[in-house]
Amino acid sequence: MGAKRPTISDIAKAAGVSTGAVSYALNNRPGVSEPTRRRIMEIADRLGWVPSSAARSLSDGRANAIGLVVDRPARVIGVEPYFMQLISGIQGALAGGPTSLLLQVTDNADAELAAYRRWWGERRVDGVLLVDLVQNDPRVELVRELRLPAVVLGEPVVPDLPCVWTDDEMAVAEVLEYLVALGHRRVVRVAGPTKFVHTQTRSRAFTEAAARLGLTEARVVHADYSDEAAARVTRRVLTSGTPPTALVFDNDVMAVSALGVAHELGLTVPDQLSLVAWDDSALCRLVRPALSAVRRPIAERGAAAVRLLLDVIGGGPAEQVKTSDPELVPRSSTAHPPPS
Amino acid sequence: MGAKRPTISDIAKAAGVSTGAVSYALNNRPGVSEPTRRRIMEIADRLGWVPSSAARSLSDGRANAIGLVVDRPARVIGVEPYFMQLISGIQGALAGGPTSLLLQVTDNADAELAAYRRWWGERRVDGVLLVDLVQNDPRVELVRELRLPAVVLGEPVVPDLPCVWTDDEMAVAEVLEYLVALGHRRVVRVAGPTKFVHTQTRSRAFTEAAARLGLTEARVVHADYSDEAAARVTRRVLTSGTPPTALVFDNDVMAVSALGVAHELGLTVPDQLSLVAWDDSALCRLVRPALSAVRRPIAERGAAAVRLLLDVIGGGPAEQVKTSDPELVPRSSTAHPPPS
Repeated sequence: MGAKRPTISDIAKAAGVSTGAVSYALNNRPGVSEPTRRRIMEIADRLGWVPSSAARSLSDGRANAIGLVVDRPARVIGVEPYFMQLISGIQGALAGGPTSLLLQVTDNADAELAAYRRWWGERRVDGVLLVDLVQNDPRVELVRELRLPAVVLGEPVVPDLPCVWTDDEMAVAEVLEYLVALGHRRVVRVAGPTKFVHTQTRSRAFTEAAARLGLTEARVVHADYSDEAAARVTRRVLTSGTPPTALVFDNDVMAVSALGVAHELGLTVPDQLSLVAWDDSALCRLVRPALSAVRRPIAERGAAAVRLLLDVIGGGPAEQVKTSDPELVPRSSTAHPPPS
Repeated sequence: MGAKRPTISDIAKAAGVSTGAVSYALNNRPGVSEPTRRRIMEIADRLGWVPSSAARSLSDGRANAIGLVVDRPARVIGVEPYFMQLISGIQGALAGGPTSLLLQVTDNADAELAAYRRWWGERRVDGVLLVDLVQNDPRVELVRELRLPAVVLGEPVVPDLPCVWTDDEMAVAEVLEYLVALGHRRVVRVAGPTKFVHTQTRSRAFTEAAARLGLTEARVVHADYSDEAAARVTRRVLTSGTPPTALVFDNDVMAVSALGVAHELGLTVPDQLSLVAWDDSALCRLVRPALSAVRRPIAERGAAAVRLLLDVIGGGPAEQVKTSDPELVPRSSTAHPPPS
C-alpha cells in the first residue's frame, strides 16, 4: 500500500499549484480559497490520496484523542446535568486543537477496564480521564501497568497520579455552618454511593463538621444519585421518629426529587424543611422554590483536566491541580427551622 | 518502522505460548488466563510491539469510530436531558463492539463542517451521525462531496440520505386534539429555532391541526431551547391582550421554565394555565405539578441510527427508518381552561 500512496507533490503537479497550497487544503488550514481547496481535494481523491490518521499516527505516534469512560447507569446520566457540563468543559479545552474526545458510557466496571486496555492497545487514545475513583480503584493499577497517561478528576488520593480536584471538604463545612446559623440542629446528608472516594471525603467532612458544631443528630444516608432512590430515602428519613429539619444532597437531581416528596408529605419548603443541592445547575434554578445549592467549577475542572492530560502526554510532570473553590448559592429552599 | 515491528510469532516464541494465545491476549478476547495475558502483554511491550489502530486501520481501512458533532451552545447542552439520552442510546448500540464514539460540542456551524472534513480526511471516523438538520443544510452537500457515510437523525427530507425519524406530526396533532377536548381554544406553541427542519415540521403540523380544529387563535412563537429565552417568551405571551390558556413547548427545559413564570405571574397550573412539554424526561416528572409531556423514543432513535450507520459503512442500502411513535403522557399540568 505504501508504495502506491500519491505524495503531496503528485497532487500539486496535477492541480498546478504549490505543495504548500496542497498542504493547506488537505490540512484544512487557511491560505487557499474555497474553490481551490475543493479542486485540490477532488484531485487528491481521484489520485487515491488518503491522508489518514493511521499514516499520521504511525509517523508521530499520536492518536490525537483522549478517552473518557462514564461508568454510571444510563438512566442517571440522562438526567444529571453534571456530565454534560463536564463534557462542555472538556470540549472547550480541546476546541481548535487536533485532539478529539472518545467517549464510552457503561455501567460495568470490567467493561471500563477493557475499554482502556483496548483503546491504549490499539493506540486509539493518547491518554484518559478517570472519574468517580473508588477505594483501591483497579483503574489506577491498570493505567500504571499499561503506562497509559491518565488524569484523575478528583482528590489527590493516589501519590504521583496527576489529578484535578476541588476542595469539597471546605464546602461541606460551609453548608453545615450556614444551616446551624439558621438554627438547624437535625441535619441529614443524603449522599451518593459509599464506594466513591468523593462520597467518602464529603461524608467524613460532614461528620467532622457536625461534631465540631455539636450536632449530635446529624447523620449520613446513601442513595445512588437517581431521583427514584432519593425519593425513597427522603421519604424514609422524613417519616422517621425525629425527622431532620434540613437535608443536604450529593447532587441536584436528588434534591429536586426531595422537593416532590416534601410536597407529597405536605411539608412546606423552606418553612418546614430546608433543602441544599450539590452541584448547582439550571435544574436548581428552575424549580419552585428555587434550590439553595453548592456551585462547583465543573466545566473549569474538565478544562483543567484536559490541559493537564495533554501536558502529561507531552512528558510533563504529574501535577495535582486544585480548581477554584465551590461556593454556596443560597436561594429559596433554606430558612429557619420551624419552632420545635 | 514497519520492518522492525515484532510479529505475533515473535511474541509467542518469547512467551512460550501459541500464536493463538498471543492473539487472544492482545485483542482482549477470552481464551487465556489473566496471568498469561499479563505475561504476554509484558513481553509484547518489551519487544516494542505496538498493536495500533493505526496499523490496523491501514490494513482493513476502518477507523472503528463514528462521529457526532453537537452544535448547540454549551449552556443549553448542560441542562437539556435530550443529548445524554441520545448518547445513552448510541452507546447502547455500540456496546460490546469495536466501534467508539468521537464527540465534539461546538456552537459554530463552520467548526462542525471542519470537524467532519478533518475526521474523514484523517480517517478518524468511518461515518457520522447528523443531528438538527436545517434547510439546505451544508452538511448534506459536504458528506456527499466527501463520500462520508452519514445517517441523519430526523425526517427523510433529503432523498437517498439514510435517516432515522420519528412521526412528530402525528404527536403534534394528538396534543392539540387533547387540549381541544379539554376545552382549550387559545393555544400557543413555544417552538425551538425556526432554522431547524424539525421545528418547521412540527410548526406546520401545529398550524394544520389548528386549522382543522377551527382554532383561529392558535399561533407559534420561537425561543432557543434555553430556560432564559423561554421565560422571556412565555412572559410576553402570557401578558398579552388575550393570553392563551395552554402552551405547548418544544422541549422540557422551556416547559419547566414556564412553570416558574406562571408562578411569578400568580397563575396556577393547571387551573389557570395548561402546559405540555416535548420530550418527556425526569425533569418533567420531578417538578410540581408534574408536567404532561410528549414522550419520544430518543434512546431507541440513537441506537437505530448507529445500527443503520454501521450497515451503510458496510455497504448496506440508504434506508429511511421510522422509530416507534411518540406518545402523550398526561400528568398534572393539563386541565380544563378557566371559564372565560
